[in-house]
Amino acid sequence: MPLLELSARELLDRLASSDPTPGGGSAAALAGAAGAALVAMVCGMPKTRTGAAEERERLGTALAWAREAGARLRRLVDEDTRAYDAVVAAYRLPKGTDEEKAARRSAIEAAMTRATDVPLETAEACRVALRAAQEAAANGNPSALSDARTGAALAFAGLTGAAENVRINAPSLGEEAAAPRLETLEKALAEGRERARALGVLG
Amino acid sequence: MPLLELSARELLDRLASSDPTPGGGSAAALAGAAGAALVAMVCGMPKTRTGAAEERERLGTALAWAREAGARLRRLVDEDTRAYDAVVAAYRLPKGTDEEKAARRSAIEAAMTRATDVPLETAEACRVALRAAQEAAANGNPSALSDARTGAALAFAGLTGAAENVRINAPSLGEEAAAPRLETLEKALAEGRERARALGVLG
Repeated sequence: MPLLELSARELLDRLASSDPTPGGGSAAALAGAAGAALVAMVCGMPKTRTGAAEERERLGTALAWAREAGARLRRLVDEDTRAYDAVVAAYRLPKGTDEEKAARRSAIEAAMTRATDVPLETAEACRVALRAAQEAAANGNPSALSDARTGAALAFAGLTGAAENVRINAPSLGEEAAAPRLETLEKALAEGRERARALGVLG
Repeated sequence: MPLLELSARELLDRLASSDPTPGGGSAAALAGAAGAALVAMVCGMPKTRTGAAEERERLGTALAWAREAGARLRRLVDEDTRAYDAVVAAYRLPKGTDEEKAARRSAIEAAMTRATDVPLETAEACRVALRAAQEAAANGNPSALSDARTGAALAFAGLTGAAENVRINAPSLGEEAAAPRLETLEKALAEGRERARALGVLG
């Protein structure tokens, strides 16, 4: 059963259990999805900041970003758990013969690549949610400014949580495969940090 | 039906709808609850950092903090939405006669007090979750360090999101009632910020 089909209470219980999955990667995607949802709420409200037509247009664009990012993040809640479970399964493959050793090595490599790319996609989607949050705060209903800011805080937490997992897993891919992924991550973090700071949610 | 009894997907849909509730206050409590859950996961793992007995003891204490904070935050997801709805209901009370006006004024005051105290409790519980996260990171299984850090990031997002709502609602209570609440909030923010910074999750 997909994690998001569980009751929210049961999902929290699974996060709290001492089993390693679902863990930080799925929780980061969940936080990002909740942040994107709040931003979508603000963008979809009938009232804009001053009522100007341009605000409605910008909110429409931001709503599309928030929805797209939110849909990806919902998918990533499950994908992160599956990616971690695949790494554990690959390490458990038999390693008696040379053929088995080679097959195991290649399964581990494929699983680690996935376990790096999934949180990297989470980080990217959280970056998009933060961009949408900034538009929501600048153009949306002033009485929902706190919701836009809270959405940004949650998306930034998702971004930093995802970054933890990218940084742990990328090195095992080797320099050539790791470098471009870490570069993408640092760009997402830099942009996200700037937007979060502009919205005053970094404390 | 309590919000946490909804499927996680349905809860995200409700956050994303343009209805004002559930909004940022409930989302902040949810993020804090997810953060506390991750921290509980790390504290409950069989392995500690080096295997020292003192680590297990500290993790036991932190687990109790994380569970207590998590239980409060789960309750606060619903309480925040109810508190907001009560404010809206109070403003809609009739104001035709002097008696009605007085009753309405007193209902608004009671509702605004609740709408300040609920996010203040969310902020406090997130502060406790951050304290537990720091113990989990210092004493827990090193392979779960990223989970402890992600838990801290989510709890800090919950704290800043809750702070938004306290700051919006407190001024309507008048200086005398607002001041001690804002002071409690600033202390929670200062402690939470310090712990989040020490764990490297403020970007």
